[in-house]
This record gives sequence, structure tokens and C-alpha cells, in this order.
Amino acid sequence: MEFKITKDLILELEQHIVNKNDKELEALLNDMHHADIAEVLDKLDFEEATYIFKVLDSEKTAEILLELEDDLRENILSRLSAKEIAEELDELDTNDAADIIAELSQDLKAEVISELQDVEHAKDIVDLLRYDEDTAGGLMGKELVKVNENWNVLTCVKEMRIQAENVSRVHSIYVVDDENRLKGRLSLKDLLTTSTKTHISDVYIRKLNWVKVDDKDVEVARIMQKYDLEAIPVVDELGRLVGRITIDDIVDVIKEEAEKDYQLAAGITQDVETDDSILELTKARLPWLLIGMVIEVIASFVLKDNENAFRRYSTLIIFVPLLSATAGNIGVQASAIVVQGLANGSLKEFSRVYFSKEIAVAMISGSIISLLLLGYHSIMYQQYLVGLAISISMVVVILFAATLGTLVPLFLHKNKIDPAIATGPFITTANDIFGIILYFAVAKMILGF
Amino acid sequence: MEFKITKDLILELEQHIVNKNDKELEALLNDMHHADIAEVLDKLDFEEATYIFKVLDSEKTAEILLELEDDLRENILSRLSAKEIAEELDELDTNDAADIIAELSQDLKAEVISELQDVEHAKDIVDLLRYDEDTAGGLMGKELVKVNENWNVLTCVKEMRIQAENVSRVHSIYVVDDENRLKGRLSLKDLLTTSTKTHISDVYIRKLNWVKVDDKDVEVARIMQKYDLEAIPVVDELGRLVGRITIDDIVDVIKEEAEKDYQLAAGITQDVETDDSILELTKARLPWLLIGMVIEVIASFVLKDNENAFRRYSTLIIFVPLLSATAGNIGVQASAIVVQGLANGSLKEFSRVYFSKEIAVAMISGSIISLLLLGYHSIMYQQYLVGLAISISMVVVILFAATLGTLVPLFLHKNKIDPAIATGPFITTANDIFGIILYFAVAKMILGF
Repeated sequence: MEFKITKDLILELEQHIVNKNDKELEALLNDMHHADIAEVLDKLDFEEATYIFKVLDSEKTAEILLELEDDLRENILSRLSAKEIAEELDELDTNDAADIIAELSQDLKAEVISELQDVEHAKDIVDLLRYDEDTAGGLMGKELVKVNENWNVLTCVKEMRIQAENVSRVHSIYVVDDENRLKGRLSLKDLLTTSTKTHISDVYIRKLNWVKVDDKDVEVARIMQKYDLEAIPVVDELGRLVGRITIDDIVDVIKEEAEKDYQLAAGITQDVETDDSILELTKARLPWLLIGMVIEVIASFVLKDNENAFRRYSTLIIFVPLLSATAGNIGVQASAIVVQGLANGSLKEFSRVYFSKEIAVAMISGSIISLLLLGYHSIMYQQYLVGLAISISMVVVILFAATLGTLVPLFLHKNKIDPAIATGPFITTANDIFGIILYFAVAKMILGF
Repeated sequence: MEFKITKDLILELEQHIVNKNDKELEALLNDMHHADIAEVLDKLDFEEATYIFKVLDSEKTAEILLELEDDLRENILSRLSAKEIAEELDELDTNDAADIIAELSQDLKAEVISELQDVEHAKDIVDLLRYDEDTAGGLMGKELVKVNENWNVLTCVKEMRIQAENVSRVHSIYVVDDENRLKGRLSLKDLLTTSTKTHISDVYIRKLNWVKVDDKDVEVARIMQKYDLEAIPVVDELGRLVGRITIDDIVDVIKEEAEKDYQLAAGITQDVETDDSILELTKARLPWLLIGMVIEVIASFVLKDNENAFRRYSTLIIFVPLLSATAGNIGVQASAIVVQGLANGSLKEFSRVYFSKEIAVAMISGSIISLLLLGYHSIMYQQYLVGLAISISMVVVILFAATLGTLVPLFLHKNKIDPAIATGPFITTANDIFGIILYFAVAKMILGF
């Protein structure tokens, strides 16, 4: 079961817009999920999308706003007054509202906040704006259900009915003391199966996971995954309950992190997608191409320098592409495993055990490749000493590439730089240069040119 | 707040194991989360881990089993009798139990199933074993709360108290008809805020998302993310409710998919981690290295063939590494964007709009790189015609690499092959070869050697 945009639907909508059939538009769209409407709006042109946006009521459009592509959202917001934006935000959960406000200009921000109708909601939103977006504080929402440890189950259920009105999904019921310090939780199951007279302090679960407001988003993601949590409470420096993070926001963190690593590995510096403009796509890609170019110009010096050698031993030069491709591949493999190990916590810093293992893998792979190459070269060209020189150089280069591929991401990680950078064109081109230098150096030692 | 393994803890455990202080071991571990205990067991040697496993009771060990690294789990299971394994499985949710049974040998499987104590549970597990692991059926669990559309809220709450006993987390209350066909859902919030006399058919929400048992896991993940769902019901061919999938299992699907794509892009064919053996690491990596080697041997022929050309125009050969690195980088960038587009649904098949955009990006990047190269070559070597030949070849090669990088993943996707393969060493080495061939062909046309 899934919604599919059809050409007919788009045509029908466009017809209704031309004829200003607002009633029909509402009837057609009110039944659709906001995520689907967002998908439809992304397919329409900007004028049409804005028209539809203004026809629907703010309960619906607020949710749609969250699902739109960034540029369309920015465009639509720029057409709304501060009051209209505030109306949208009044409908949203605090964390979603804060995310949208954070995108606005400084002036507009203040104006929109002053137009918010629900004062409690506004306070919560302003509070959330204080936190960095990549911390627990930046991810959390204020909507939660909490009960006092001194209540009984009946009071608790009554209070919860009131609190639940403002909470779209009840994940856990948090238990706090009189100072709002987090003490534990009540499970929904407990609520369904415990007698109403029971005292909360007798039934609540004292062990629970929580994070601090300034914990990093990726850390929160790791903890929630490890303990299979669907929501986690957030406490401030004094242990007071200030918010909660839900798994849907964590899914976004996980996806973004994975996409970022993947794009870095592919030599793309910004988060681009197939529907970005030519300029954006070029800007995200050209830097690595130019860095690669500068590095490879060095390679041209090394080759130029060794011109006499390969004029004398012509097979030396024809295996340069094989050598640099293999060095690049080994380097990327080595660094990818380290980057993933760092990401999932199985590797935390330089480990002698792991490094020795990597060197052993490189040694085995290198020996197999070198022996095959030696055999091939001997059969094809019958220059045994040259073949030997090429093969030995190959092993040296492979060992070096594996070392570099393992150590560079660890070094970056230690210096608080994203190690995923090391899996991209950087490691490939660096290995190219060092590989070519080592190759000719070793060959020179053996052949004595 | 997070658990950290300390050396002291490990030493203390090892001491207790040596002295067979089972009571102290239990006291020490019973308070810990099963995911943390699993982390500790992975750090101990196999004998010690098994000892602890046998000390703890099955309620705890069953959950630990799920969190262990594959090889340790396999090892421990091999030490347990069918009856002991069945005791563990009796404690687990149906989908987790089914996953563990699926790993057992055919004979042991039947024996373990026959030892399961809870007949209903056993039936559910056997039912789940029928589905492929990468489908909705393979992901779903049988634990859910469902009510009949003909009940009222009071009956419903009573029934739910009974059903909730077997369900660790109540996500949604599904509404079915007398034939068990899925009709809609009741939210937990509705339950908390509706009068007990209300008839279910008057309050339940008829619009809801569901998936079919044979839908692919990545599809389920996409739908649950799009609609921000924490659980989704699964129906059979007749629309009958047969299970539900929860977001924690989907988080695993998303992570695995991202890790797989990342590893494929890095030229690693199997899911390996830093703590795998040297043999496993080599087996996952050597194939791509050998494929790369074979392809690059072709490059050596092309170079050999053009030996006279670069003996005459020596700068031709020294820019080969630059040329192949750039072609490789452009190709990987192009294919990575397509692969991500296919993964997140923003690209579904060949699109003329996107392809033109990619060619434009390649044209811009190619022109910038070629002009820089032309300037550099002219200044350094004063051989203007050779410089021009190299620059023009470069543009041709870049355009070709971008085309290949865009079309290959689309072609693979169309033929139901994972397009992520195309971002790895394959596209880099393929671009090497074609790049070198094109480079000399274009240079030949211009310089006429």
C-alpha cells in the first residue's frame, strides 16, 4: 500500500488551480497524508505550490512544511507574513517549530516568536533555540508525559489524560521528584496492568537511560540503538528533565550520517541530491577534483624524473596504472574498515592488534598479486629482473597503502576531524603519489638505473 | 550516562569465574542491561563467556543472545542442547526467536521447535520461518494488540490488558473485523481520552499505513520513514492482519543498507568488521583487487601499444596518472549521486533531465581542469600542440567517465542488480582503461603519431 503520484493527479490539481476551485482542491488534498502532499508540491511549480499551500488550513500545512524540500520551504516561507508563519508553528511540536525558526533570518525570528499564540509553547520553542543542532538539546522536543513520584496511579492517569492532549505520541511516562529531577519511568504496559490505587513510587522503574543536553547527536543515536529505545529523556546539568528525543529524529540522524560518509567517500563535499542545480552539484564536486589534480601533477614530476629508467626498461611504465589502482583500492578498503569501526564503536583508537591484522591482510593480498604479476611479466616479456623489481615494488607499495589507509583516519579521528574524509579521493590520490615514488625507488635499487 | 567496560570489571569477573563464585557473578551482572552484558561477553574468552552464560537465568540470557557478535553466539549455541536453546527462545519475541532458529542447522531446527513450551508462541515462530529475511514477513513479529471493530472501549481495555501481557511495547492498537481483516487503528491517546462506553467502530481511525508480507525490507523502511511510523501492521494476500514491524528493526535495516553501500563503494564484498579474522578480511577484499588487477593489465597493453607515441611526446605519458585519477574521481562522484538518488527514491530510472545536468557538470569541471592543465603544460614544457592534445583528451575522458558513472548504476538497477556495486573499484578501474584508450586515441588524432 503506497501512495503514487500520477500524471492525472498533477493535471487535475493544475486544472483546479487555474480555475481557482479551492473547494475541490481541499476535498482532493484533505484526505491525503501530509508527506504525500509535500511530494506533490515538490512536483508542481512554485506558484502552484504556494497557491495550494494557502488554500489548505494551517493544521495540515504546518506538517507539510516539515516534509518539503529545503528550497521550496524557504520559498514558501518567504511569501508568508510573520503572523502566518507563527500560525503554522503553533500547530507543530516544539522541536519541529524550533527547527523551522532556526532557518529564518534574525529579524524575522524575533517577529515570528512574538506572534506565537500559545505562550507555554513559545517559551518551550525559545528554550530549544539555545542548543546546537547537533546535540541532544537540538534534537529534543518538549512534549512529554511526566508524573510525580509522590502520586498514585489514579492521580497519575488523570494528569496524564491532560498532558496527553498535547503529546501526539506517548512513548514513556517519566517519573520526577518535586524538583523535576528525573527519577525513573513508568511503562505504558504497567499503566494498563496495575491497580489504580498503587503508589507511583512503588511501581516505577528506577533504571533508565537518559542523555545530557550537550551530548552529541551521533552519541544519542548510538545509545538509542544499542538499548533499542524509542524515546530517551534529556536532562540538564542538574539532572532535571528538560525534554525527550524520539526515534524518528534519530533515524534522520543515522541516515544523514551514513549519507555524509558515503558522499565523502565518493569525493562529494556537500549534501547534494539529483534534483540540485548544476551549480550546486559542481560546487560540491570540483574541490576534490582540483585537489586530486594538484596531487597528480606531482606524479607527473616523478614520472618525468624517471624518464630514462622507463626508456630503458619499457615495461616499468606500462604497469604504473596497475600499481596506482591497486594502491588506491587497498588504501580505500583499509580506511573504510577503520572509518566504520570508529563509527560503530568497535575501534576507538590505534590498536596494535588491529594494525597487525591489517598488515597481514595487505601482506597476503600483496604477495598473491605480486606473484601473479611476476608470472605474467615473465611469460609476456621475459625480462626476469625487471619483473622481479616490479613485483617487489608492488608489495612495498601495497604495504605502504594499507598503512596509510589505516593510520590516516585514526589520526584524523584523534584530532577531532571527521575520519570519513580519508576514504575519499584524498587517500586514493595520496596513495598514487607515494606509490609511484616508492615504485621507482625500489625498482632503482634493484635495477640500478 | 553510559555504561563503560573497565579493566577492573573484566578482572573481577574473571576472578569470580576462576573461583566459581556464581552468586557474586549473578549479583554483579543481574543489574546490568543485556546489551552491556553482551559487550562484556564479547571481551572475554569463549570459555569464560559460556560459563557466565550458564550462570545467568534464561530470561536474561535470551536477550543477551540477540546482542552478541555472530561468532560468539554461534559458539555458545553449539554448547547448548536443543532443550536449552528452546528455553532461551521461549523468552524471546517471535521475530527474534525466528531469527535465531533460522541460523541453526536443519536437524537442530526441528528439534528445538519441538522443545518449545508455549504452543502458541511455537506456532507463531514456525509461521515466521516461512518468510524470506529481507521481506516484511521476515522482519515482522507476532506480538501485537488488536481489537474487534464490534467491541466497545471497555471490552477493548479489558482485552488489551490480557494481550498486553505478551507484548513488551504497545505501539498501536489495530482494529480488525470478524475475519481478522485489518480495518484501522486506535491510538493510545484515544484510549486515554475516550469514554469507556464508546463503540470502537465509532472512534477508530480508518486511514492507516500497512505493508504486505512479501514487500521488500528496504521498501518497508522507506514507507516507515516517510510517514514517521514507529510500527506498521503487516497483512497477507487477503488483507488479514498477520504481524507488525517495529522501528527498531527498521533502524537495523537502514544501518545495514548504508554499511553495505559504503563497503561496496570501498571495494569490500562482504560485511566485515575490525574484529574479524585475517582470513575473513582478506576474502572480502581480494576479489576486487584481483578484478582491478586484470583490468589494469589491459591498461598495460594500451600503454605498450602507444610506446612510440610517448617516446616521441614524453609529456603524454607523465600525465596518465592525472588523467586516470580524474576520470576515476568523476566517475565515482557521478555514480554515488545516482546510487543515493535510487536509494532515497528521488531518482527512479533514466531521466533525461538529470543526465543532461550531469553532463553539464562534467563539462564545466572538465573545462576548468583542462584549461588549468593547458596553461600549466604550456608554461612548463612549451609544447603547445601536445598540451592542447592532452587538454582536449582530458575533456573527452571526463565526459565519458561522467556518462559511464551515471548510466552503469541505472543499468544495474534496471536489471535488479544492486547499483552500489558500480561506485566501487569497478567504476574506477573501468574508467582507467577507457580513459587511457580515449586519451591516446584523441592525442593520436591531434598529433598524428
